[in-house]
Amino acid sequence: MAGRNSLPLLPLLIACVLSGAPAEQRADDAMRRYRETLHRLVETGLREENAYRMLQVLTRRAPHRLSGSADADTAVRVARELLTAAGADSVWTEPCMVPHWERGPVESAVVAPSSRRDTPFPLAICALGGSVSTHPRGVRAEVVEVRSFDELHALGPRARGKIVFFNRPMDPGLLNTFDAYGQAVDQRSRGAVEAARAGARAALVRSMTLAGDNVPHTGTLSYVDSVTRIPAAAVGVRDANRLSDLLKRDPRARVMLTLTCRTLPDAPSANVIGEIRGKEKPDEIILVGGHLDCWDKGEGAHDDGSGCVHAIEVLHLFRTLGIVPRRTIRAVMFMNEENGARGGTSYAASPSRARERHLVAIESDRGGFAPRGFTVESDSTTLARLLRWQPLFEEIASERIAAGSGGTDVSPIVKKGAVGIGLDVDDHRYFDVHHSANDVVASVHPRELELGAIATAFLCYLLSEQDIAP
Amino acid sequence: MAGRNSLPLLPLLIACVLSGAPAEQRADDAMRRYRETLHRLVETGLREENAYRMLQVLTRRAPHRLSGSADADTAVRVARELLTAAGADSVWTEPCMVPHWERGPVESAVVAPSSRRDTPFPLAICALGGSVSTHPRGVRAEVVEVRSFDELHALGPRARGKIVFFNRPMDPGLLNTFDAYGQAVDQRSRGAVEAARAGARAALVRSMTLAGDNVPHTGTLSYVDSVTRIPAAAVGVRDANRLSDLLKRDPRARVMLTLTCRTLPDAPSANVIGEIRGKEKPDEIILVGGHLDCWDKGEGAHDDGSGCVHAIEVLHLFRTLGIVPRRTIRAVMFMNEENGARGGTSYAASPSRARERHLVAIESDRGGFAPRGFTVESDSTTLARLLRWQPLFEEIASERIAAGSGGTDVSPIVKKGAVGIGLDVDDHRYFDVHHSANDVVASVHPRELELGAIATAFLCYLLSEQDIAP
Repeated sequence: MAGRNSLPLLPLLIACVLSGAPAEQRADDAMRRYRETLHRLVETGLREENAYRMLQVLTRRAPHRLSGSADADTAVRVARELLTAAGADSVWTEPCMVPHWERGPVESAVVAPSSRRDTPFPLAICALGGSVSTHPRGVRAEVVEVRSFDELHALGPRARGKIVFFNRPMDPGLLNTFDAYGQAVDQRSRGAVEAARAGARAALVRSMTLAGDNVPHTGTLSYVDSVTRIPAAAVGVRDANRLSDLLKRDPRARVMLTLTCRTLPDAPSANVIGEIRGKEKPDEIILVGGHLDCWDKGEGAHDDGSGCVHAIEVLHLFRTLGIVPRRTIRAVMFMNEENGARGGTSYAASPSRARERHLVAIESDRGGFAPRGFTVESDSTTLARLLRWQPLFEEIASERIAAGSGGTDVSPIVKKGAVGIGLDVDDHRYFDVHHSANDVVASVHPRELELGAIATAFLCYLLSEQDIAP
Repeated sequence: MAGRNSLPLLPLLIACVLSGAPAEQRADDAMRRYRETLHRLVETGLREENAYRMLQVLTRRAPHRLSGSADADTAVRVARELLTAAGADSVWTEPCMVPHWERGPVESAVVAPSSRRDTPFPLAICALGGSVSTHPRGVRAEVVEVRSFDELHALGPRARGKIVFFNRPMDPGLLNTFDAYGQAVDQRSRGAVEAARAGARAALVRSMTLAGDNVPHTGTLSYVDSVTRIPAAAVGVRDANRLSDLLKRDPRARVMLTLTCRTLPDAPSANVIGEIRGKEKPDEIILVGGHLDCWDKGEGAHDDGSGCVHAIEVLHLFRTLGIVPRRTIRAVMFMNEENGARGGTSYAASPSRARERHLVAIESDRGGFAPRGFTVESDSTTLARLLRWQPLFEEIASERIAAGSGGTDVSPIVKKGAVGIGLDVDDHRYFDVHHSANDVVASVHPRELELGAIATAFLCYLLSEQDIAP
């Protein structure tokens, strides 16, 4: 795959077309041209590793880009600059209002064993996104451990006045870590509500991770209006195990939980958009996006700085290689995926969309790992058309093309008729870093990150060249 | 892929066979049984992550396992213990003599610019494996930089008395990092000989890596008897760039190189072997191996501690799941792959082999990364037979089955008729760590490592169950 001896195939192709060469010959020529483009994308992308440099810029200048924060504002400016530097024809923002939750200066949990022989010890915790604060002097209560809502419900009145500790681990025996996450995350998203319904005063949730360290992993929780809002925090898995061990021999142990997080009024923010206009069909749009906001503990390097620079790098690779797309390639950095998805909703609802036709909306939001393929949210005919390109994607080991979700941010535009496509990646390391202080640029590998952009750029190129709509 | 609802398929299969069910039905039943076994391997392997625990033991007790060293002796003992604990039917060693090279206490290089305005600075270096030492007070000479042997030869007498600095980088634009390594490694393996032929006094070689850090990467060099042996060292890439920049403006700059490495008489060592005897065809052997020795800078965690624990974990997974193989599954930890390959040669030449029939010899020596498939060193008929299993390996994203090398250690037994198979992995990070202080257990991911063992165990299982020989 050196690509150094690439032939000038386009004139050859044109000659074939003009000479009325048979359709099969034309298809072969097109395939050759596609492969040649892929080889150029690989060679240039991997040599320049531009996606990684952009990720370094974004994470250094705006590490804690939670919606409504000062860093989120900075991120909007940085994204504009990066899109402009990448060579977009036009760059703009589209405003949207976003939730504004702040972690606050204090979050702590201390375990107080009931016996004086045992020493109190702190837990590594962080507030779950959207949690209410505790009383300034904290919540002090006994702890009841459960592995499921069923176990909680079975406790009946015994959960009243307690702190409920949800401690069901993600199952490492599942091959796909997103499946393991999906099977465990109800504890984080609905734990506070279920605990409150049982009369509890607070909730602690084992971190959603497969790593063996003690770093707490945050993420959003949901309240419902009819149920008292109680504070909730994630616990590092080592401390979750330690607390669980203690409770077995000391069920009267107490935890003192203090959180100072709070929700402020909604804040103004924006999606950031840049595009290369299509030469033949400028109103037909291939969207490629990630989300610009992230949780406030790490740098959102994988989640979802990687998705952002994937999208920008698609434009940059087109420009660098002089690829002029037939259709418009639009990069969108959505705001507020993590705790509201307002950016995606607002983008799809904008009056500007009425003049446009979104054929496809691609999202990268599974981390900056080596790409494996794409998940497709569409009808089976469209999926079958995409599957014809598998032999091409085999060259970059990204041929796993299967039905699946496009992504949270593109979901509203997919509901309006676009084909949703999610970049699928090697996910074994994702939940080591996800929503935690581990999600820093040092955990991203430059080649793996760039290959995600290369795979996405190549898909955009094919979608621009060929018709996948029936 | 939960595998929890697995059916007892074997009795069903036997019933089908006895009842004379059609061949197609039997094939379907076999395929179902294979899938069920794969699911059990995945679930158990990923939950227990036993390969990683074994790798921790090996790298902690014997981190610097270079042939002839005390750690290599320890590694032989540790490997025996791990094989026994894994449940092998029998564990033994087979002696072999190995080269014994030692790095020595001092290795340093200091750049002395010709102008007093520029300050001298050290280079991050390490002796190449097998290098002779310098004079105790070092070699001090001007430096001539080249990118290839052609450039060196073109210099004619201008290389005489100098230190030749080979500075051609690995090409990051190649998708496969082993290809990039293959295109650059002649500088390390033959640089000292070519430089000596040109009359040079020493050689410096840019490290074989795609990482951007300054860690030097060692590896073996070759001398030839007819050419003076000159000392040679690898330079970290940042310092290689710095030296190159200096030489552009100061071609008279000198380097003072001091190495205290030495070659001692050959030392006694051993291959370590353990096996589960086949129930039906015990004399037909499926070999799975890695190499126990490693370079002395890191811990040899990827290269090739991972290959060793892959092999042992194959036996452990068979035992844990109660899989009784039809043929013998033999794990071999070869000694001395890095600087002599004596273990592989000795294994194949042993008189014990005369009583055995090696059908297949699998080697894992590309690091403990997520598996992608297998390279097959055999005829096209055998490859075609293996390719029938691609749909099974697709489930664990390890379906890339293609012609290629089995591996250095198994090469001698492959020459005697065994099918050689190399475990193929995601290689993007391999040359960041290869032969350097970066190759430590912290750079290995437990899930990725275990999946390599799972893929290999499943291949061994299929090879034991089915016939691939014509």
